[in-house]
Amino acid sequence: MAGEYPLRPCFFPLFPPTHVAWLPLLGYSAPLRDTAPAKRSSLHFQGIAQQNSKYTNAQTNKINLPVEQFVQFYYQTFDGNRQNLAGLYRDHSMLTFETNSVQGTANIVEKLASLPFQKVAHQVSTLDAQPSNQEGGILVMVTGALLVDEEQKPMNYTQSFQLLPDGQGSYFVFNDIFRLVYG
Amino acid sequence: MAGEYPLRPCFFPLFPPTHVAWLPLLGYSAPLRDTAPAKRSSLHFQGIAQQNSKYTNAQTNKINLPVEQFVQFYYQTFDGNRQNLAGLYRDHSMLTFETNSVQGTANIVEKLASLPFQKVAHQVSTLDAQPSNQEGGILVMVTGALLVDEEQKPMNYTQSFQLLPDGQGSYFVFNDIFRLVYG
Repeated sequence: MAGEYPLRPCFFPLFPPTHVAWLPLLGYSAPLRDTAPAKRSSLHFQGIAQQNSKYTNAQTNKINLPVEQFVQFYYQTFDGNRQNLAGLYRDHSMLTFETNSVQGTANIVEKLASLPFQKVAHQVSTLDAQPSNQEGGILVMVTGALLVDEEQKPMNYTQSFQLLPDGQGSYFVFNDIFRLVYG
Repeated sequence: MAGEYPLRPCFFPLFPPTHVAWLPLLGYSAPLRDTAPAKRSSLHFQGIAQQNSKYTNAQTNKINLPVEQFVQFYYQTFDGNRQNLAGLYRDHSMLTFETNSVQGTANIVEKLASLPFQKVAHQVSTLDAQPSNQEGGILVMVTGALLVDEEQKPMNYTQSFQLLPDGQGSYFVFNDIFRLVYG
């Protein structure tokens, strides 16, 4: 597939090839995002939200199920038994978790398994996706909160993925960058 | 360049081609990140930080100046006169700003110019980068805080970019996703 559609960054079409269901990805926003207005801590942000609110319905209509399903599967698996995430990575996949970077499925799973908590629960607040190349790649950025073990105070986090097609009609995680966000 | 190095997602080499200075990108962490330990709100996170601390020096040694310089230039320009960011985008570039997505330099600059604040100051907390393809693309994820107008309370944000080579030895922003993060 890559050979058929070599990446030409400087001549990327205005929209992806029609054989790739990319358009729905543009600006997909998880509805959960706007279900927490109480969390808005700034009039300025409220201004931004109000300014954008007229786009919300249009964006919500652009939900891309594969991306939403990937994110739901990823965090459900992470919160259940994160070693089961191995199938999502390949030997050339990269994970940056806080200040630690590893490459390859085995190293990534080892890193995830070594994280110093037993119980973890993620809640996704926002999910945005854009096409990342002409071969079907998808850039996904998530924000959310997570609770670990017996902690009562959720920690905010952000995580970016690049998903690439695996050639069998599915995707694998090529890039994975995770950071906690401090208020 | 793209023609010489067609993207082959399923056969991406363990490391990028040596003619592209990508290795330093793996897991670059902005030193500023670890200068705010007081903000760490969780023993669990402290555990994660301590676990990763042995990597910090190694990661810090991997600073990639082009990425750091891009991020510094981006926010300095945004905070100064954000319409001057036009040169960083192309007609196929995409911006998702909160729930609003636009494509193309003119639409992106119009969107940025229309944001409902006059003064803005970004402070980057973390900066991580990974190679995003075999043509020199770079995935950048930033977390930080921003102050708008006369607000006293910073708002946390996260922003992901994919930078692609422009064929003249520089980069342009192909993907740009911005979200505020609520504590």
